Amino acid sequence: MLNFEFCSPTKFVFGKGMQSRVGELVKEFGGTRALIVYGGGSVVRSGLLAQVKDALDAAGVPYEELGGVKPNPRSDLVYEGIRICREKGLDFVLPVGGGSAIDTAKAIADGVPYDGDFWDFYCGKAKVTKALPHGCVLTIPAAGSEGSNSSVITKIEGNLKRGLSTEFHRPRFAVMNPELTFTLPRYQLACGVTDMMAHIMERYFTNTKDVDLTDRLAEALLVSIREAAAKAMADDHDYEAHATLMWAGMLAHNNSVGVGREQDWASHQIGHEISAKYDTAHGASLAVMFPAWMKYVYQHDVARFVQFATRVWAVDPAGKSDEEIALAGIEAMQAFFVSMGMPATLEQAGGCKEDIPALAAKVVNGKTGHFVELLPAQIEEILHIAAEK
Amino acid sequence: MLNFEFCSPTKFVFGKGMQSRVGELVKEFGGTRALIVYGGGSVVRSGLLAQVKDALDAAGVPYEELGGVKPNPRSDLVYEGIRICREKGLDFVLPVGGGSAIDTAKAIADGVPYDGDFWDFYCGKAKVTKALPHGCVLTIPAAGSEGSNSSVITKIEGNLKRGLSTEFHRPRFAVMNPELTFTLPRYQLACGVTDMMAHIMERYFTNTKDVDLTDRLAEALLVSIREAAAKAMADDHDYEAHATLMWAGMLAHNNSVGVGREQDWASHQIGHEISAKYDTAHGASLAVMFPAWMKYVYQHDVARFVQFATRVWAVDPAGKSDEEIALAGIEAMQAFFVSMGMPATLEQAGGCKEDIPALAAKVVNGKTGHFVELLPAQIEEILHIAAEK
Repeated sequence: MLNFEFCSPTKFVFGKGMQSRVGELVKEFGGTRALIVYGGGSVVRSGLLAQVKDALDAAGVPYEELGGVKPNPRSDLVYEGIRICREKGLDFVLPVGGGSAIDTAKAIADGVPYDGDFWDFYCGKAKVTKALPHGCVLTIPAAGSEGSNSSVITKIEGNLKRGLSTEFHRPRFAVMNPELTFTLPRYQLACGVTDMMAHIMERYFTNTKDVDLTDRLAEALLVSIREAAAKAMADDHDYEAHATLMWAGMLAHNNSVGVGREQDWASHQIGHEISAKYDTAHGASLAVMFPAWMKYVYQHDVARFVQFATRVWAVDPAGKSDEEIALAGIEAMQAFFVSMGMPATLEQAGGCKEDIPALAAKVVNGKTGHFVELLPAQIEEILHIAAEK
Repeated sequence: MLNFEFCSPTKFVFGKGMQSRVGELVKEFGGTRALIVYGGGSVVRSGLLAQVKDALDAAGVPYEELGGVKPNPRSDLVYEGIRICREKGLDFVLPVGGGSAIDTAKAIADGVPYDGDFWDFYCGKAKVTKALPHGCVLTIPAAGSEGSNSSVITKIEGNLKRGLSTEFHRPRFAVMNPELTFTLPRYQLACGVTDMMAHIMERYFTNTKDVDLTDRLAEALLVSIREAAAKAMADDHDYEAHATLMWAGMLAHNNSVGVGREQDWASHQIGHEISAKYDTAHGASLAVMFPAWMKYVYQHDVARFVQFATRVWAVDPAGKSDEEIALAGIEAMQAFFVSMGMPATLEQAGGCKEDIPALAAKVVNGKTGHFVELLPAQIEEILHIAAEK
């Protein structure tokens, strides 16, 4: 186990009807004028936006609105949000939505008190030293941004998708009502399930020794997600299944299962390039990249893949070699993704084989991954596995 | 799953040598003059107290000292600590030790800014509305007080042992260096292991339905603790085993595995009376009470006890009835406690059978427990099971 720091200070307010408390929560954390950040019509159609406004009105918190956040959220809306906050003197950012709305809000919160371009933070030119407080109402269990210290934004110029982790990115509160996810399109739910499993697996595949405790916690989450996802995909009003996914999605990414261990993140990095180029949904890019990555690296630590296969995917080891067990686990995982409607190949994810060298060349810093460090040539090989199925 | 709130804001600083950071941490959380609270000679003999003072000196934080905390910490030292803080104008409480030092510090922190008797909070006469900030250096993995919102103090007059949970009780930081636990006497380590398992089991045995996720997280912790405890008991310099126990002890009690579910806590309540009467170590009282409680209540939900037996204690279900599986799990747990040197009976825990009616009558409010609600007559029956082995 490595030395670590862990602080997950967010106040999670979980359960039915909890969106009615959002006004009181903004005030509790010092907000006096809020910017509501949201995406498209679903938050409007469902009546959630109106409920949030009612709660702010009831608490006496004035607000402005910024709609139009899209998946793989972009820098233009961040600049717009920063402008509104400055012009109107807003002191709290309140995203209502999924990871894209929350990540946009985090970037706005970074940018408002900063003299330069907020992108300085995302491209590593500057460090966040203060930010507006922010708290969220979650509608999509996926990104884990409601409990995490990270945010991913795509800069329009150059089509650069970059993540930034800083403790200023931890939301002050997260309102989590699983009922709000009942209306989520099944494809989006499947993307979310894939994303939360990916967050766990990026941490699970490590070279750090003696990490049995976090291994078992990670496996507990993966098994619960697998079982709840099947129920939630089958019944969009199964409260318990949706509640399990919503809470698991937070735990998957607040680093509970990542403390004290080296983490990988190659599949995310490569997936980001696929999303940036083809506007592929983040979860869909991971559904393709994770199995390909696993098939490329499993021989680096077969025992870990055997543990993964038997404990998470219930692969029966009888009569199989370790290598066969490991591969059966990877196959079971990919079959699970496909059963939810996720793509199995780069092409199904909207990509094409001809772009592979360009995609690999674009991965940040020219190398990625810690479980196995990958250079562009190896990234190309993994992308070819993804292209072949 | 029930609606819930969860906030565990403590900054955990985990690993080798981390006590050197305590001065900087006190300052980070606004402390300018600290009260160091500790127990007996071990903190002095090991050199830890000197290291903590060096770190405070280096950070320019003056301090006073309050030694002499004992297991089942008492009110007299709390009054003394409050007096020192007021007289010397101290604004931060810094316990160095285990649950007893931390719980004492929490009570001092509550009492300093309060006009009345701090015991008002513990007996339910008043509510904490402000408290001094506090952060700890942990030396005993057991109570989980480094991450929990609770504190248990024994009032000397009337020998009343009472717990108080409030969000003001969450430490601002917790320095957790597993090496500091190498010198712990094996009996105390065994008590700690029992206590952390008990914290999980109090939450595990619930009537709330659809709690698969927290069930699996609880089971993951219990299995890791069971395996690490065996290694740590066998080798007092096994860093990884001690690290696993230290982190698991925090997770066992910061409510990670208790959210969204009704919890029991009868065994703790009854155990507190045993500790208060005989000064039995807290963990030892639980080692006796938990198996007795389980034998009394398992028929209330045999399926849950079967799950516990098979997933946590690896009981082989082949050829056994559900009742036999459930009982085998309870036996395996008790055998594990005994293997670490814990008592198996009330007498071995320092008690005697003749006191049972008086013990049962003293349990707070005359009833306890949620999995099965227990009245004094039933508490007596459980104590008789504990007396019989």
